Amino acid sequence: MFSLGSWYGAHMAGPRGEYRKSAERRAQILEAAFTVFAKNGYTASSVNEIARAVGITQTGVLHHFAGGKIALLRAVLEQRDARAAGILEPRRGRDFLAGLVEISAAQASQRGVVQLYRNLSAEAVDPDHPAHEYFHARLHRIADAVTSAFEEVRAAGGLREDVDPRDAALRTLAMTEGLELLWLNGFEVDMAADIRAFIDGHLVDPL
Amino acid sequence: MFSLGSWYGAHMAGPRGEYRKSAERRAQILEAAFTVFAKNGYTASSVNEIARAVGITQTGVLHHFAGGKIALLRAVLEQRDARAAGILEPRRGRDFLAGLVEISAAQASQRGVVQLYRNLSAEAVDPDHPAHEYFHARLHRIADAVTSAFEEVRAAGGLREDVDPRDAALRTLAMTEGLELLWLNGFEVDMAADIRAFIDGHLVDPL
Repeated sequence: MFSLGSWYGAHMAGPRGEYRKSAERRAQILEAAFTVFAKNGYTASSVNEIARAVGITQTGVLHHFAGGKIALLRAVLEQRDARAAGILEPRRGRDFLAGLVEISAAQASQRGVVQLYRNLSAEAVDPDHPAHEYFHARLHRIADAVTSAFEEVRAAGGLREDVDPRDAALRTLAMTEGLELLWLNGFEVDMAADIRAFIDGHLVDPL
Repeated sequence: MFSLGSWYGAHMAGPRGEYRKSAERRAQILEAAFTVFAKNGYTASSVNEIARAVGITQTGVLHHFAGGKIALLRAVLEQRDARAAGILEPRRGRDFLAGLVEISAAQASQRGVVQLYRNLSAEAVDPDHPAHEYFHARLHRIADAVTSAFEEVRAAGGLREDVDPRDAALRTLAMTEGLELLWLNGFEVDMAADIRAFIDGHLVDPL
């Protein structure tokens, strides 16, 4: 996983000093918010704790994220999703499914990310949770994208005859989520290998 | 799902008035604790909110559960686990695996139970959470029991040749957890049918 600092550095070469400093501070705050949310979940986290982690005041945080804790949550989630979308969006069919395996492989070294999504998505099943709509829409969007990939594989003659693309997509998603849970609980599971084997069970030729 | 009141009624016919009233109140508190935890998770719930749901004072709750919120959580979880254990413990091999399908079928009418476990188990991945050890041990205990069942099926010649009992158990557990998550998020999944089909994929003869 590349660091936030280097990402901003690469894309914002030569901004004026004040602007660059502000972007760096914003990146620091987001990284701290990510760490605090991943540890405590959303409900039990506070802007104050995030501010302390950066070594600034609460007002300093609100200068960058005027919407407070919800704005921080949204920014953290959008940042993570943009990275996954960057891997998956240009891909179709088998190539997309292989991308899911790559993301699983990368997550094995990102325990905090997996923990954050698990914590927040569990809280967010409550319709009153500020991220309820976000997680709900996200899961359905992923399910639709995986369904399309299986449909593309079928159109190319690569899907086993008895497999329905939608069923295959939902089961792949369920298996991915379940394996993450076991992995977070200390089971010896190789998420990427297991997801690959599971997807292969639906294909004429393995990935 | 039978109500707690009728359960106590059936098993405690004829206790003296004071004792029966105390048992009923205890059952009411447990039912309220279950509802509140299921809605908010553990961290965001309070003894006061549970007391209000029963229509008594916080002191009234603490009279029955001197250990407070943690004691309530433990009692709620133990009650649920005792019910699942009642279904599974006398069974072996294929019969045990069929029991997993039955529990999935029953959960489809118990959204609150599924929600409670999902919320609490997600929070509890944090080693500082009071139920961390409980959920960790519970998941490993279930994994071991399902592994034993697949081993018994293998000993009886009922497992497909390329299937490892431990792998089959962990994947069945992952699939169960993942399907619950999708179901809670409004996907059209038939948890019991999907778990049955998934288990059948490992067996010489379907359940």
